[in-house]
Amino acid sequence: MYSFNNDYSECVHPKILDAIVSMNGEQNLGYGVDEQSENTRQIIRQKLKKEDAQIHFLPGGTITNLTFISHALRTYEAVIAASTGHINVHETGAIEATGHKVIAIKTTDGKLTPELIIPVLKEHTDEHAVKPAMVYLSNTTEVGTVYTIDEIIALSQFCKQNNLYLYLDGARLSMGLAVKEAGVNFENLAEYLDAFYIGGTKCGAMFGEALVILNDRLKQNFRFHMKQHGAMMAKGWIVALQFQVLFTDNLYEEIGKHCNEMAGLLSAFFESRGYSFFTPSNTNQIFPILPNHVIRRMREEYIASDWAVIDETHTAVRFCTSYATKREEIERFCERFEEFI
Amino acid sequence: MYSFNNDYSECVHPKILDAIVSMNGEQNLGYGVDEQSENTRQIIRQKLKKEDAQIHFLPGGTITNLTFISHALRTYEAVIAASTGHINVHETGAIEATGHKVIAIKTTDGKLTPELIIPVLKEHTDEHAVKPAMVYLSNTTEVGTVYTIDEIIALSQFCKQNNLYLYLDGARLSMGLAVKEAGVNFENLAEYLDAFYIGGTKCGAMFGEALVILNDRLKQNFRFHMKQHGAMMAKGWIVALQFQVLFTDNLYEEIGKHCNEMAGLLSAFFESRGYSFFTPSNTNQIFPILPNHVIRRMREEYIASDWAVIDETHTAVRFCTSYATKREEIERFCERFEEFI
Amino acid sequence: MYSFNNDYSECVHPKILDAIVSMNGEQNLGYGVDEQSENTRQIIRQKLKKEDAQIHFLPGGTITNLTFISHALRTYEAVIAASTGHINVHETGAIEATGHKVIAIKTTDGKLTPELIIPVLKEHTDEHAVKPAMVYLSNTTEVGTVYTIDEIIALSQFCKQNNLYLYLDGARLSMGLAVKEAGVNFENLAEYLDAFYIGGTKCGAMFGEALVILNDRLKQNFRFHMKQHGAMMAKGWIVALQFQVLFTDNLYEEIGKHCNEMAGLLSAFFESRGYSFFTPSNTNQIFPILPNHVIRRMREEYIASDWAVIDETHTAVRFCTSYATKREEIERFCERFEEFI
Amino acid sequence: MYSFNNDYSECVHPKILDAIVSMNGEQNLGYGVDEQSENTRQIIRQKLKKEDAQIHFLPGGTITNLTFISHALRTYEAVIAASTGHINVHETGAIEATGHKVIAIKTTDGKLTPELIIPVLKEHTDEHAVKPAMVYLSNTTEVGTVYTIDEIIALSQFCKQNNLYLYLDGARLSMGLAVKEAGVNFENLAEYLDAFYIGGTKCGAMFGEALVILNDRLKQNFRFHMKQHGAMMAKGWIVALQFQVLFTDNLYEEIGKHCNEMAGLLSAFFESRGYSFFTPSNTNQIFPILPNHVIRRMREEYIASDWAVIDETHTAVRFCTSYATKREEIERFCERFEEFI
Repeated sequence: MYSFNNDYSECVHPKILDAIVSMNGEQNLGYGVDEQSENTRQIIRQKLKKEDAQIHFLPGGTITNLTFISHALRTYEAVIAASTGHINVHETGAIEATGHKVIAIKTTDGKLTPELIIPVLKEHTDEHAVKPAMVYLSNTTEVGTVYTIDEIIALSQFCKQNNLYLYLDGARLSMGLAVKEAGVNFENLAEYLDAFYIGGTKCGAMFGEALVILNDRLKQNFRFHMKQHGAMMAKGWIVALQFQVLFTDNLYEEIGKHCNEMAGLLSAFFESRGYSFFTPSNTNQIFPILPNHVIRRMREEYIASDWAVIDETHTAVRFCTSYATKREEIERFCERFEEFI
Repeated sequence: MYSFNNDYSECVHPKILDAIVSMNGEQNLGYGVDEQSENTRQIIRQKLKKEDAQIHFLPGGTITNLTFISHALRTYEAVIAASTGHINVHETGAIEATGHKVIAIKTTDGKLTPELIIPVLKEHTDEHAVKPAMVYLSNTTEVGTVYTIDEIIALSQFCKQNNLYLYLDGARLSMGLAVKEAGVNFENLAEYLDAFYIGGTKCGAMFGEALVILNDRLKQNFRFHMKQHGAMMAKGWIVALQFQVLFTDNLYEEIGKHCNEMAGLLSAFFESRGYSFFTPSNTNQIFPILPNHVIRRMREEYIASDWAVIDETHTAVRFCTSYATKREEIERFCERFEEFI
Repeated sequence: MYSFNNDYSECVHPKILDAIVSMNGEQNLGYGVDEQSENTRQIIRQKLKKEDAQIHFLPGGTITNLTFISHALRTYEAVIAASTGHINVHETGAIEATGHKVIAIKTTDGKLTPELIIPVLKEHTDEHAVKPAMVYLSNTTEVGTVYTIDEIIALSQFCKQNNLYLYLDGARLSMGLAVKEAGVNFENLAEYLDAFYIGGTKCGAMFGEALVILNDRLKQNFRFHMKQHGAMMAKGWIVALQFQVLFTDNLYEEIGKHCNEMAGLLSAFFESRGYSFFTPSNTNQIFPILPNHVIRRMREEYIASDWAVIDETHTAVRFCTSYATKREEIERFCERFEEFI
Repeated sequence: MYSFNNDYSECVHPKILDAIVSMNGEQNLGYGVDEQSENTRQIIRQKLKKEDAQIHFLPGGTITNLTFISHALRTYEAVIAASTGHINVHETGAIEATGHKVIAIKTTDGKLTPELIIPVLKEHTDEHAVKPAMVYLSNTTEVGTVYTIDEIIALSQFCKQNNLYLYLDGARLSMGLAVKEAGVNFENLAEYLDAFYIGGTKCGAMFGEALVILNDRLKQNFRFHMKQHGAMMAKGWIVALQFQVLFTDNLYEEIGKHCNEMAGLLSAFFESRGYSFFTPSNTNQIFPILPNHVIRRMREEYIASDWAVIDETHTAVRFCTSYATKREEIERFCERFEEFI
């Protein structure tokens, strides 16, 4: 069985593991106040061209989202997300468990726009409803789409005008940055967002995400929140070290590029065989619509996840590639697939 | 600089790292439903002699405590802890952040007894006060002491009679089990507790703890809670694999034994030089009371943490040993210490 | 200025005030364990024909909803509501503040059906999403519509089959029960629901609601929740006494009938003048769509609330009647309205 | 049976009820934005000599405490209270349920001082512990004692120096202000506190408290919090009207004076009979230590609450007087008591 089930099926990029092996003898201070962590922060800040960016290392995506969002919001404030947003559907009510409403907006492609947000603001005007205070984006989105730099700038201006924080969940940021035509890079994320996290777990790390806080109002006392939510790791430097490797020789962007390319090969194959897609995607998650009888045969050799029932005989399936996906495996899949049809 | 600051200064036991390196090519299912995790659960269950123990792998101690305690309690229920208990003083109100009061009891040695708990029950009898529903122990305690098997049995019977869950924080369980005269082993923990966690982070793992739920009433839907609090790791098998190694050839107990022995050498040295201790300890944390001028000189070469101000010229200092502490480093310290006096 | 703004513009039904005046000399036990409260519970139980119904008196609607819902749900469980539901839009995230997601379903008339709920259940099947555990209805709904007894029975059966609690917000229950063709009475509410509250504040009381818990699993320890949320009034008997009066000589139903009749007169008037309605309603809230220039003139003499912008020149306005609305005031309004056109 | 059980056994001061009766025909705006509420705010502001004091009307003491404290604190911040403080022991963990730790300090008389608070600040210095951010006082305290103006000034200065909000729970403020030798009045409360509430429920009102916010930083968006916690009453003006009467002709102070005098008569009687007291009190709660066999006989005719077990044959009993306690009832009690001995 080979798995295209997700981008966290394999353990860790070999370069990262090498770094862990070679530092294993050392002693470090605990809780992220060590030199390794500080060095990594400095490397990331240089990449962002923001000397005063505040950077924290946390163990996973959901805990990063819930810790940061509950840090930023007052108890009566709410966060706006696409209805497909990870915080709205795949975190078991983690944000609500910290006391905050997620205001979900239906979208066609998993992406928010000022136009979609305006009606929400019009409906939330007094103390009888929650106060919208943050916009949550994912890039890439949960359906594989990508924000362009123009879309991010438009949202940034809109949020500033309307007193909304703009936060980006970068679980798959590596893949988002690798889409050249989107034109998004670390520098402009640092310019246009109030905060975002650089995904590690889905981008080659063993575990861990790097939260970047840019807005000064959001910097104070975040470490209290981290500790309170169990997000401050005793051996925090292990996350930092991983990002040090990911930020060396553009490994982070390279991983994204590789993932997208591998998924692109799969897409091209499905297209060439006449299949359509549930949502268009040029990143590492693709959603071909396949006949159920084909899926059944495929399942004997491959793991991929059901995404949506299309009709009685068709289902959209998610294929996901990772830093470890090999070209040969894609080729072998395409060969095998001919047998499944 | 050499650090006796804590037991999480070094990365990971070499045997664990070897195992990670050798499995790095493999694919696994996410979120802890993979074979590695299931195998490790089976190994732990055999050790506990409890076929129906439910076992979960979480990233750290605070998040394990807050996720499990808030899972077990209804919103108006409270947990009883020693006032020195980790959940009471060193988790930034993590339990309260989930809505529950920690009822703190002053102790002389960090250990709870039925006698100490009885007055709390007498004061909490109706709906105008919280309802005590759980007793939280740490073993070893935060001040280095250890529960004996008789003490645990007494607490277990008392808790059953009074409708209280008994939960043990095993951040340093490895060291607790290594104290032979205490007579506690995995089997009787499984017999007398409702739940406990087997500490990884402070016992040689890179990160991660193994939560063991024994009481059937507490087993249902725990994975919902894990996910909601961000405690369910995408690559959960990495924690499992570490425990697989720790539970092979008694490595877990060996690590505890080693830590305690190394701390014992330090203790013997301080005693031989006439120093007294803030609290007596036969485990890996010791608390000698040292003159401040000695501490100042020592600090130029060694890291150890201030624990309590004793008087104007003396301070209790915590020395902590780990799986990685070498006998030669202890010997070198003792030699160097003569210079600090 | 005369107000049709809502059904809580006037203080209290004179019969209730008389009762308060005549008992003002007495002493009572605090916190709802007094004889007045117990007598009232007995009267309500007889009306419900449920000897074991558990009844609590709380100060208002939002606090009743948040206290009961958070009592019934485990932390990872969610409540399903119409998107127009009071808990979803007009309680400032009160349910989320207790940690629970409100899953909102779009409806055409403010009413849920099994068919509308089924897709939600299909999307929430594992621990990566919240677990739907309760269905929340309002009767009358926030848009003036009413559930029929057949609709309630269908929902009740559906909820039982799907392990969902069925809870009804009866802020305007008096008006709901007064719609004869709906065929709903107290007895069948007690038979088909797990819990509901009998609204006082909007039905002639000074303040206060009576929560009725029917499902045994939900009865335990509710008073702890009440106290914890500040919903247990020291002088709880004052709420009880009000319900005693409301349940004497069918006053509660009479009030609902009166409110609906007065609103019906207004409806008939608007219809006769050719206006259409935003949502059809046969209860005490009606929503005629009026020209903005008429509204402006009307506002000089009458208070009524804007409900929805229809187009550039028309707005739906809510008119609301109460126990205190006099027929002469309706007649005077109709006369005056001719001047506003 | 006559009750000295508490100060909320009787419904409402007749003058307040008269006012309700005489305004019952009127219409008012909902949710506290009406003229009655605004007039009452103005009257209170004049009494406080603070034109910019922000005043809110809430239904009860516990909900006022939990709503205000959770409004003022960030999630990782804690409130300091005497261990006897109402929020620590008699609100069923209401503060913790909003996510905040109550740091309890043992006192001899229910009163906090800077000296008692200093050690707490020394122990809470970094992100591994909660951040103390507020000091909670009750006046009168739960054990009947009273803060003097000098004590309040000392606490105020200390709190300002240490970045702590100073908040006073005035459930029995009427009685506290009536102790002339304490020298505290409304004006200096407004000068030295960040916020406090003026108790209604225990001081002659039917229900309701008036929260006064003085610190500008705490004024913003409080109404969102009120609504979210179910503390914003639809007919808010009913609370306001009650305070209007309480603030007319010094009724509020008169009630406190009367309560204290009646309790003083009881105290003098017990003293004259040779009984000692559990805590000294010159306000409306007194705590004589009585033989159990006397208590048993007394219970056949009088209600008063057990407070503390002193030894096997003695118990401290709380006697509490109210606005409605008549001198003749005290005299009758003293006569009857001779029979109980």
